[in-house]
Amino acid sequence: MRYIIPDISKVVLLLTQLGGLKMEETLLMIPGPTKVAPRVLKAMSEAIINHRSAEFAEILTETNEMMSEIFQTDNPSYTITGSGTAAMEAAAGNILNKGDKILNIVGGKFGERFMQIAKAHGGVPIELKVEWGTAVNPEDVKNILDENEDIKAVTIVHNETSTGVTNPIEEVGNVLKDYDALYVVDTVSSLGGDDVAVDDYNIDICVTGSQKCLAAPPGMAAVTVSDDAWNWIDKVESSSYYLDIRKYRKYASNEPSETPFTPSISLMYAMREALDVIMEEGLESRIKRHKLAAEATKNGVKAIGLDLFADEEVSSATVTAINMPEDVTDKDMRGTMRDKYGIVLAGGQDHLKGNVFRIGHMGNVTYKDIVTTISALEMTLKGLGFDVELGKGVGAVADTYLASKKF
Amino acid sequence: MRYIIPDISKVVLLLTQLGGLKMEETLLMIPGPTKVAPRVLKAMSEAIINHRSAEFAEILTETNEMMSEIFQTDNPSYTITGSGTAAMEAAAGNILNKGDKILNIVGGKFGERFMQIAKAHGGVPIELKVEWGTAVNPEDVKNILDENEDIKAVTIVHNETSTGVTNPIEEVGNVLKDYDALYVVDTVSSLGGDDVAVDDYNIDICVTGSQKCLAAPPGMAAVTVSDDAWNWIDKVESSSYYLDIRKYRKYASNEPSETPFTPSISLMYAMREALDVIMEEGLESRIKRHKLAAEATKNGVKAIGLDLFADEEVSSATVTAINMPEDVTDKDMRGTMRDKYGIVLAGGQDHLKGNVFRIGHMGNVTYKDIVTTISALEMTLKGLGFDVELGKGVGAVADTYLASKKF
Repeated sequence: MRYIIPDISKVVLLLTQLGGLKMEETLLMIPGPTKVAPRVLKAMSEAIINHRSAEFAEILTETNEMMSEIFQTDNPSYTITGSGTAAMEAAAGNILNKGDKILNIVGGKFGERFMQIAKAHGGVPIELKVEWGTAVNPEDVKNILDENEDIKAVTIVHNETSTGVTNPIEEVGNVLKDYDALYVVDTVSSLGGDDVAVDDYNIDICVTGSQKCLAAPPGMAAVTVSDDAWNWIDKVESSSYYLDIRKYRKYASNEPSETPFTPSISLMYAMREALDVIMEEGLESRIKRHKLAAEATKNGVKAIGLDLFADEEVSSATVTAINMPEDVTDKDMRGTMRDKYGIVLAGGQDHLKGNVFRIGHMGNVTYKDIVTTISALEMTLKGLGFDVELGKGVGAVADTYLASKKF
Repeated sequence: MRYIIPDISKVVLLLTQLGGLKMEETLLMIPGPTKVAPRVLKAMSEAIINHRSAEFAEILTETNEMMSEIFQTDNPSYTITGSGTAAMEAAAGNILNKGDKILNIVGGKFGERFMQIAKAHGGVPIELKVEWGTAVNPEDVKNILDENEDIKAVTIVHNETSTGVTNPIEEVGNVLKDYDALYVVDTVSSLGGDDVAVDDYNIDICVTGSQKCLAAPPGMAAVTVSDDAWNWIDKVESSSYYLDIRKYRKYASNEPSETPFTPSISLMYAMREALDVIMEEGLESRIKRHKLAAEATKNGVKAIGLDLFADEEVSSATVTAINMPEDVTDKDMRGTMRDKYGIVLAGGQDHLKGNVFRIGHMGNVTYKDIVTTISALEMTLKGLGFDVELGKGVGAVADTYLASKKF
């Protein structure tokens, strides 16, 4: 017995040191939902108030105005109770009459989603296929627009969460300046973590979600709409009701300002608080922090000896997709990270399932989170028989941060 | 100066006694959102976890199973991040091919909404108009079905929140047993507060919202679907994406169980806790409590000398609509209730705006809330020059509760 007791206590000690004993929260390093700040959780738990009151109108208006500021647009923004997909549908589902042509740039799961939404609403998609892991070439967009003068809209996903690729939305926006087609951009997993300047990029409709770089709890989406887009939307017969964006515009203009349907009041409290956090950090600093975290992550995984899935020059500021090393299964790798080290990573989606894993570095992500993740990744892979020199990945992370002159 | 100071202190004392000094929460006596229990708010503020994990799957499955129990059905139920209207669209928007006939029973704002949703999805509505303030006659439903054999579905709102009327969903369900049409019922403002037995009433699709009698925060909706309805839905081309109910079925059957889109994790925590509260109280006791609160409210307002808007024999168990007394404006009446007494009532909707006010008595409503509200109503009306004998309404409330043998 006396030989067993010290062994168990060692295991307990080790588990405790590693955070495996539920002494602390599991660290979410997935591409959303992300860790929510305690002050945001606190705001969310305030008592419910009437959603048709001056008091709520103030919160709603402030939130919508901050959203426009973060979208970098003079256009109004609207919050919708629902996931980011609800905002995608509020965008692509309200601009198409039956038979209207729409160009969907598809280089991952979320690009495909825009196309499926367009189809559900009677649109006729033209798919611009982009190899998963690469970004779209703006010239290809131009060529398709030249061949199809009747394209009503172009959809693009800024940051393809499924592949870790960032598409050149500014350059595609420049191409679109010479065409009438509306420019619809999904910034669900980039807004607040990478450069998005709606007005400068000529974006007509831009959508996002609460639970990624904005670091609010999931369940709230936002959309901003240009005058050009409104002119077009007002001519379209919407095949949505809950996601008919015109209703959000109408009710927002009421006195006091409202939402068309009972919104999630608690999530609105949380959203406003999370946006306040962003304003306090400053949007520019926040984006720099994300880019640095992405660089450190990439350098860390490369130093370990892993390969990035996405082309590095177009790799994302908010999520890094990594090829699963040979002879290591997704179940073992992510399972060990989760169960032994208390860190949750994301798997691959669709045909990348098992072949790729993803590290989300978005929202309130700090240097500590990256170091911890890369260190645990080293230990996990070593434990699974992968040839790793412990400390090499973490060293590369530290190097990156030091070189950034922020430290 | 010495004469002014005591006056101010008296005012402060009075305001304090009345709860006007923000010492306590405003009392929400509106037909949703309703007061959320502290333990539910606490559950909601737990840290965010991965929505594609075994841990979340357990919460999701438990919540969906409890929803089926509360719907009193063996059919599966699904939760959707969105308002009750989202669930109405997940119901009425997934059962119609273009040109399909649907019978919409319309006796208030929410009956109309079902019709508008059906229209948005290509349906051809047949409207059964029911005078606002009265309930539908099941014979009228039968007659229309006899005249239109190709009606695909019938929609009804159980508890018309806008008028305070309860429709006879059991009797209409009995009529529908002889027809193929799907039976779609909105129990957004009744489930958990009035009798709803989905299987016994022959209901195919039943929808509800989180923020009414279930007393969870707003932003979560639920829907339950029968086998007959699934057979039909599987033949329909959905014109929804986010609200395509088939996606919720597919992902719920994954291992571990999932939602198709990132759900509001915080609201799911809250929903599960709120449903736990219901299970602890017992559904039957909860419904009795609601019916008693409704009776007490009606007796109270009648004793004050006010007239109910809805026919009393079909008046709601969860919300009471009251005609605004002559020479009293909505602004003065509800404004005084809110600003002086800290109690929020609801106004009239659409053409009832200004002519009707509504007292919601749903969710975690207790005897104390009804007494307080009726007492404040007496004082408010007296202050506005209405001839009220103070204490008469409150006495009628107390009488009702004592007569119920619960006290």
